[in-house]
Amino acid sequence: MKNIRLTVWIGMMCGCLAAGMLQAGTRPDNARPAEEDGSRLWLPVMRPAEGAEVEVIYKGKVSPTIAIAIAELKNAWKGEPVLLEKKRTGQGDGFAITSSEHQVRILSSTEAGLLYGVYSLLRMQAAGQVTVPLSVTEQPVYDLRILNHWDNPDGTVERGYAGRSLWNWEELPGTLSPRYEAYARANASVGINGTVLNNVNASPQVLATSSLEKVKALADVFRPYGIKVYLSVNFASPIQLGKLDTADPLDKEVIRWWRRKVKEIYTLIPDFGGFLVKANSEGQPGPCDFGRTHAEGANMLADALKPYGGIVMWRAFVYSPTDSDRAKQAYLEFMPLDGQFHDNVIVQIKNGPIDFQPREPYSPLFTAMKRTPMMVEFQITQEYLGFSNHLAYLVPLWEEFFGEVRPDRLKAAAGVANIGTDVNWCGHHFAQANWYAFGRLAWNPSLTSDRIADEWLRQTFTSQPAFVRPVKEMMLQSREAVVNYMMPLGLHHQFAWGHHYGPEPWCSVPGARPDWLPSYYHKADKEGIGFDRSSKGSDAVSQYPDSLRQIYNDKATCPEIYLLWFHHVPWHHQMKSGRTLWGELCHAYDRGVRQVRGFQEVWDSVEPFVDARRFGEVQSKLKIQMRDAVWWKDACLLYFQTFSGMPVPAGIERPVHELEDMKRFRLEISNYECPESGFNK
Amino acid sequence: MKNIRLTVWIGMMCGCLAAGMLQAGTRPDNARPAEEDGSRLWLPVMRPAEGAEVEVIYKGKVSPTIAIAIAELKNAWKGEPVLLEKKRTGQGDGFAITSSEHQVRILSSTEAGLLYGVYSLLRMQAAGQVTVPLSVTEQPVYDLRILNHWDNPDGTVERGYAGRSLWNWEELPGTLSPRYEAYARANASVGINGTVLNNVNASPQVLATSSLEKVKALADVFRPYGIKVYLSVNFASPIQLGKLDTADPLDKEVIRWWRRKVKEIYTLIPDFGGFLVKANSEGQPGPCDFGRTHAEGANMLADALKPYGGIVMWRAFVYSPTDSDRAKQAYLEFMPLDGQFHDNVIVQIKNGPIDFQPREPYSPLFTAMKRTPMMVEFQITQEYLGFSNHLAYLVPLWEEFFGEVRPDRLKAAAGVANIGTDVNWCGHHFAQANWYAFGRLAWNPSLTSDRIADEWLRQTFTSQPAFVRPVKEMMLQSREAVVNYMMPLGLHHQFAWGHHYGPEPWCSVPGARPDWLPSYYHKADKEGIGFDRSSKGSDAVSQYPDSLRQIYNDKATCPEIYLLWFHHVPWHHQMKSGRTLWGELCHAYDRGVRQVRGFQEVWDSVEPFVDARRFGEVQSKLKIQMRDAVWWKDACLLYFQTFSGMPVPAGIERPVHELEDMKRFRLEISNYECPESGFNK
Repeated sequence: MKNIRLTVWIGMMCGCLAAGMLQAGTRPDNARPAEEDGSRLWLPVMRPAEGAEVEVIYKGKVSPTIAIAIAELKNAWKGEPVLLEKKRTGQGDGFAITSSEHQVRILSSTEAGLLYGVYSLLRMQAAGQVTVPLSVTEQPVYDLRILNHWDNPDGTVERGYAGRSLWNWEELPGTLSPRYEAYARANASVGINGTVLNNVNASPQVLATSSLEKVKALADVFRPYGIKVYLSVNFASPIQLGKLDTADPLDKEVIRWWRRKVKEIYTLIPDFGGFLVKANSEGQPGPCDFGRTHAEGANMLADALKPYGGIVMWRAFVYSPTDSDRAKQAYLEFMPLDGQFHDNVIVQIKNGPIDFQPREPYSPLFTAMKRTPMMVEFQITQEYLGFSNHLAYLVPLWEEFFGEVRPDRLKAAAGVANIGTDVNWCGHHFAQANWYAFGRLAWNPSLTSDRIADEWLRQTFTSQPAFVRPVKEMMLQSREAVVNYMMPLGLHHQFAWGHHYGPEPWCSVPGARPDWLPSYYHKADKEGIGFDRSSKGSDAVSQYPDSLRQIYNDKATCPEIYLLWFHHVPWHHQMKSGRTLWGELCHAYDRGVRQVRGFQEVWDSVEPFVDARRFGEVQSKLKIQMRDAVWWKDACLLYFQTFSGMPVPAGIERPVHELEDMKRFRLEISNYECPESGFNK
Repeated sequence: MKNIRLTVWIGMMCGCLAAGMLQAGTRPDNARPAEEDGSRLWLPVMRPAEGAEVEVIYKGKVSPTIAIAIAELKNAWKGEPVLLEKKRTGQGDGFAITSSEHQVRILSSTEAGLLYGVYSLLRMQAAGQVTVPLSVTEQPVYDLRILNHWDNPDGTVERGYAGRSLWNWEELPGTLSPRYEAYARANASVGINGTVLNNVNASPQVLATSSLEKVKALADVFRPYGIKVYLSVNFASPIQLGKLDTADPLDKEVIRWWRRKVKEIYTLIPDFGGFLVKANSEGQPGPCDFGRTHAEGANMLADALKPYGGIVMWRAFVYSPTDSDRAKQAYLEFMPLDGQFHDNVIVQIKNGPIDFQPREPYSPLFTAMKRTPMMVEFQITQEYLGFSNHLAYLVPLWEEFFGEVRPDRLKAAAGVANIGTDVNWCGHHFAQANWYAFGRLAWNPSLTSDRIADEWLRQTFTSQPAFVRPVKEMMLQSREAVVNYMMPLGLHHQFAWGHHYGPEPWCSVPGARPDWLPSYYHKADKEGIGFDRSSKGSDAVSQYPDSLRQIYNDKATCPEIYLLWFHHVPWHHQMKSGRTLWGELCHAYDRGVRQVRGFQEVWDSVEPFVDARRFGEVQSKLKIQMRDAVWWKDACLLYFQTFSGMPVPAGIERPVHELEDMKRFRLEISNYECPESGFNK
């Protein structure tokens, strides 16, 4: 991979195929770009053919996939004629692109690979990165690059902040929204090749025949774009849908029921991908309800799918209210099963041991399990990073994960989608970048945050350096800004009950599971703050490899970004900056607030480069983010100050809200919506 | 006056009567001062006698006033024995203080003067400014130093933001709240010697016999403190209370009615002060209703009061919806009457030609009227400066006025009170400073903002320099900060309809008087902003003396603080800073916001010097002020930007609110209350 990147980037500095290309995005000097609603994403609009298109050569039967590849080139390619050639070159969906003076050649073993090659060529063109002679070979690091939709049959999307579910189950299979194909095209353009259509909190009804016919209709739309369909299944489906007495995975009737259901699915959808299962987690049924292990449950389903080439993605997101440290539980429950899973099972593990926090250390399962295929589950939707109100470019978070967990330990990557019926798909124009980036990163986890932001910006807005430079810098800072104004220094899960939007470190709900309350995680008291996971505390550190365990186990060596994750630290503890812990906490929150203020300034400064609609929409979102950042800072500092008893140091912007007002405030939203605004006294 | 001030200040540098005195306010090093609720104002608490008090000598009959003077000394004076001596020295309530090794002498022609001398001595002591030998002589510049209460019979206070009216009319005259005497003491301590008890929008019922008996009860409490009582009267009282057909001031029955009523008053209250009249103004009845002039109306009342030594204060606050420029109308209506008022009439003129804005040029009547006794009406209550939520020390505003209008052109000073039933009297602890300062300035208009803030802080909080220095600086900046974040560069009256708290430059009320709408004053359009009062516009400039008219009339010479008051200025007009008008406007609003942020920082930094209660209450008010400052800035800049079409310059903090949200927002408060918070989306 490294070579490829080098080629492309060195190319940037040397020359380009056609001088005009770099200018592709240039606006006339005194005109604002034409209004855009964000619906085209990072892709060129598909326009009717004009007859003057570039020549595309393909020797063979033009399948639907090849037809798409040709159409994309004719729509947007501004260079020499292109030859598409299906030819064994590398494995699977890899491709090669070369060029001579009068022709560009794209080679791949598969039709999907040719399509990926086409999108790669067009991406280089849009980013002004086409260099002659072309010499690119690409191979996806993961064969499975899968979106997880948490969409419910009633059209709501759990933790969805971009409108309703894209899938209109009422209209399906008869009516096919044009957005289904647009969705497939966007995914294909970044290499995503699978989609789990429904929520992991799965309704058994998804497997009803009437439902499967709808799934088939979507699968038919997605197939030409190289995208397989998967379903989340409810482990109790045999009871609830099949009217059996049990869902015991060792029960013959149960096994038979699943086999029949799988056969039915493959009759409708011959290339069906498989199942995603959330079992014995947060109230979902699972094999443990019948005295069986996760492995027994997963294997039973895997065996049913095996004849058809299907797989099971079995989630390791389990924790019970009884154990002392939630962060340890997935490890405790899955490690004993290492080596017991059949070969078409992949254990799907969230990147961190808790739950998609703005910052977590990696889940120790990733380094501990040696004989189990694993995949990472990222969350593209910003459940814990300000929903679709906050600009938070997530690649630095994912990049951080891949810096701790070597990509080759994994077999696949999944991302919980942030897509809905909003005109701009993701609620926030910049949230599109996270969808884009997930695909790019699942293809090649060694791509940098900088590189992905750069190419996304050029395709989505403009290539003009005066725009790209500051806006990219803003994107690159944005996740750290969220960490700063929400939960710096290893703090985690200080979110408001239920919706996870605003801060509620004081949250107290009578009878609530303790591990669903912020105090479980911050453990603030007169002495200090933080969760002691050292060997003197919950000993979660022991789940990490020895070298890392030693680093994390000692306050003196533990990276400060994880300090309060692993340690309960005295308020007066001296930090590397020389400040006390309390002072450092204050500075971090303050830095977050100032960063967002900086984002506002950056965005306003690039107004001439952006169409009025998208400019205004992002500007409005940044205002919400700014107000929210202050809310977070005030809530956390004023609340934690009731324990530290220490003054907010000079130089820190003073709180503007009252703790008591913030405590009284309730944001009346569900798990399916994005608020228009945060704290209002 | 100049000499006296010099004496005191030079004295500060030389030595002090007793070394311990400077330390009076010093707290033990590690203890927070004991909690205070603000009810003692700037005065020492009156404690029961302990028998070890200082010796006070007075040769003569100990009247109630002398008894108070003695009690105050015994309560608080820490120096040598004091001799009080009634002796002709200067005029009226002036006094002299001298000292020998073993005695302090206070001399005055009047008992009130002796009391003022006592308060002066105690003030010097509290401020650590007692120097030996003492040699102070003081003479009040104005004989009439009057508070105007806008209190209604139902207990509400128009533009009152500190609770309800202090006067409990239901309980009076039978029950006397201890706060009546505390009020009188506070006034006497700063030289205030008159109080108009009721609203200028006066109910005729105030002159009913039952009401006068209540007024008498208050007058009896106030008398020992040298304070006379006045009443606002409704010009139509003869009709509404006396059942006459007319209130024509030339009608004999009317004249007789008033004479009888005045006689009744003086029978109850022999030292009654007189009447304050708002006539033919904002719907109040007046002589013009009967074809008579203001002079004829005022003179008739004055003649009735004359035999008893009473006076009439006749307000010049008149404007009708028909004329083109409200700022010109008081002048147009009163100048023709110059010389026609009887000698016990004083025309009471608001400091500016519009209405107590954060900044106005002076009312041109002050320099134009040559043959009419005049007095200035200041507004202590912050109707247009953030109510009792904003810290706004008003002396710089009044000092600015006395820099433009020579104090000796006036005969008296009135201040609209900011006092109510709140425990701390004024709603905001720092609003007490404005009550204090009004008295001090009415006694001596050449006292500086700095001096008054200094002595108030030392008496009210502590003398420690680490407290006084930064907090005084904050006070001195505070009025300019309000101007900056509300209405800089001469903008005026951009307030929300009715309550005048927040911004509403877009305000549009169907059928409303145009001169009650902000657009009447800002006149923003595509070309520029501001009210053209130059000779090419309304020509209000011509009401000023020629030298000033020339300066104000020309954009190039008009002080920028008044620029948009006198001119409609193009958005691109180059300001002295080199910025465009638009840029300067943005910078001014931004400066205001940053100033308040600075106040928050200053206040937090002095936490150790202030008791927890007052510290917390002021801190909370500053939070509201901070949020309001941002609200004002966002509302005005985003609204005016719809005209200028120019971007907010770099370096200016970006707006965080949406114009449309602010336009939709209504603060549901009356004219009698202070909101707990400002803009909530």
